[in-house]
Amino acid sequence: MVSSIYWNGEFIPYGEVKVPLEDRGYLFADGVYEVIRVYGGKPFALGRHLERLKRSSMAIELPFLLSTEELSAAAERLIALDNKKGDTILYIQLTRGAAPRSHIFPDVVRPNLWMMLKPFLKEIDYRNGVKAITVPDERWSRCYIKSISLLPNVLACQKARREGAFESIMIRDGFVTEGSSSNFFMIDEGILKTPPLTNYILPGITRQIVLELCNRKKIKYSETHIGLGEIYCAQEIFLTSATIEIVPVVCVDRVNIGTGNPGEKTVELLNAYRENVSVFP
Amino acid sequence: MVSSIYWNGEFIPYGEVKVPLEDRGYLFADGVYEVIRVYGGKPFALGRHLERLKRSSMAIELPFLLSTEELSAAAERLIALDNKKGDTILYIQLTRGAAPRSHIFPDVVRPNLWMMLKPFLKEIDYRNGVKAITVPDERWSRCYIKSISLLPNVLACQKARREGAFESIMIRDGFVTEGSSSNFFMIDEGILKTPPLTNYILPGITRQIVLELCNRKKIKYSETHIGLGEIYCAQEIFLTSATIEIVPVVCVDRVNIGTGNPGEKTVELLNAYRENVSVFP
Repeated sequence: MVSSIYWNGEFIPYGEVKVPLEDRGYLFADGVYEVIRVYGGKPFALGRHLERLKRSSMAIELPFLLSTEELSAAAERLIALDNKKGDTILYIQLTRGAAPRSHIFPDVVRPNLWMMLKPFLKEIDYRNGVKAITVPDERWSRCYIKSISLLPNVLACQKARREGAFESIMIRDGFVTEGSSSNFFMIDEGILKTPPLTNYILPGITRQIVLELCNRKKIKYSETHIGLGEIYCAQEIFLTSATIEIVPVVCVDRVNIGTGNPGEKTVELLNAYRENVSVFP
Repeated sequence: MVSSIYWNGEFIPYGEVKVPLEDRGYLFADGVYEVIRVYGGKPFALGRHLERLKRSSMAIELPFLLSTEELSAAAERLIALDNKKGDTILYIQLTRGAAPRSHIFPDVVRPNLWMMLKPFLKEIDYRNGVKAITVPDERWSRCYIKSISLLPNVLACQKARREGAFESIMIRDGFVTEGSSSNFFMIDEGILKTPPLTNYILPGITRQIVLELCNRKKIKYSETHIGLGEIYCAQEIFLTSATIEIVPVVCVDRVNIGTGNPGEKTVELLNAYRENVSVFP
């Protein structure tokens, strides 16, 4: 069960939060969000997530009223209020607040900012790897904004699950963009490849950390466009997000990737990531 | 002020509605909606709107549990509860309900269906016409679904208002699709033209009624792709939606359209629309 909720500066029980009927998040998906892994009571890369929240907020012209320091303190307090000290997920959402329904921004904007801490429940088969499918990227053209306008992502993700796969890899104009809620990586001739940060891709924080780990471990990488056809010939594939960390993909569209087992570099990076979980800022 | 709200079969005061914090409409924009004009207590084309709500719902694999007859009766009851007999707006929203946050559909879906009646407040200058701007169509590729994933529409509409215009006309791959919350029409060499119903366009009910009026009035029309360049040479332009009816556009991107006044056919169609408001099913 979720315990307390941070709601605009207050800490209140989950059941007592009053979401306004005309919150623009509920009517227009007019808001942004972040998802943060909390390891043993410590939110991982919290500063980076809050900075991205601020950037997303600015991108949709939504006033970001708290400093990231204040928000960080509120997050730490919410985690402290939680009795469980295990691994949890911190969810933060910021919307343009409530106003009589109209596409136009309200004259006076009172954003609603809230956070909740949830148990980490995902069961992911890191040992054997997971399956993925490819789907057309049907999303809008500003995917670099982490907005709650997520219906296309939801439908893509559901499609994967219905086909017995863990994730959908999205293809736009013949090239890989990303997963429905993850970034895409592959190893080709020993080099790590991931799509460059265009407007069609979310600048993932785990993605960035993987590239930093590559620098440390002297693994060559290239941020480059990846054609659909290249995927099936990859030596290794993995997906990343704050929630799932680094997940080996062993099969795409029923084609085995590499040996059909989690790749060597993937496992090396996953181990390095986990070792460094408390180290990265 | 909004009076009562219909919420999952009950009629409750606006302030007492409890939107669940984890309603998927609030977290993922996982829902669909309709907006209906109510003229003197009579919802216009209610049946068509409810049928479209059902189609949108099916398109996102969301169970549509009530019959359109039951929904229609609930809408009529909500309107009857309203003391004001003037022109109002009926808003209907259907979401995939509340569940612990996960992109995947919940195992058991309990949709949240609600309706509100709002005063009609828009001030539209039908006499002089309005200005519009063109913007890139940044939306997803399934715009035929009337979903609440509306952030791109909100940003496009806001851009118009900031530039002193009434609406943004969206351009995709060089062709007009529609407005941020309206359909597009133009008169060219005496023929009415509007973009055909591809996946990039909402099948507007007012749009359909305009075409039916053209049939009655023997006005020639063509559902055809319209290039950006064609707009500026149009004799007349107008936009349609249930809320705004038929609005003459007299200026696009600072270029006057035709004489710079509302066009003859536009006014003819607006008058015919209003005369028929109580007639159409």
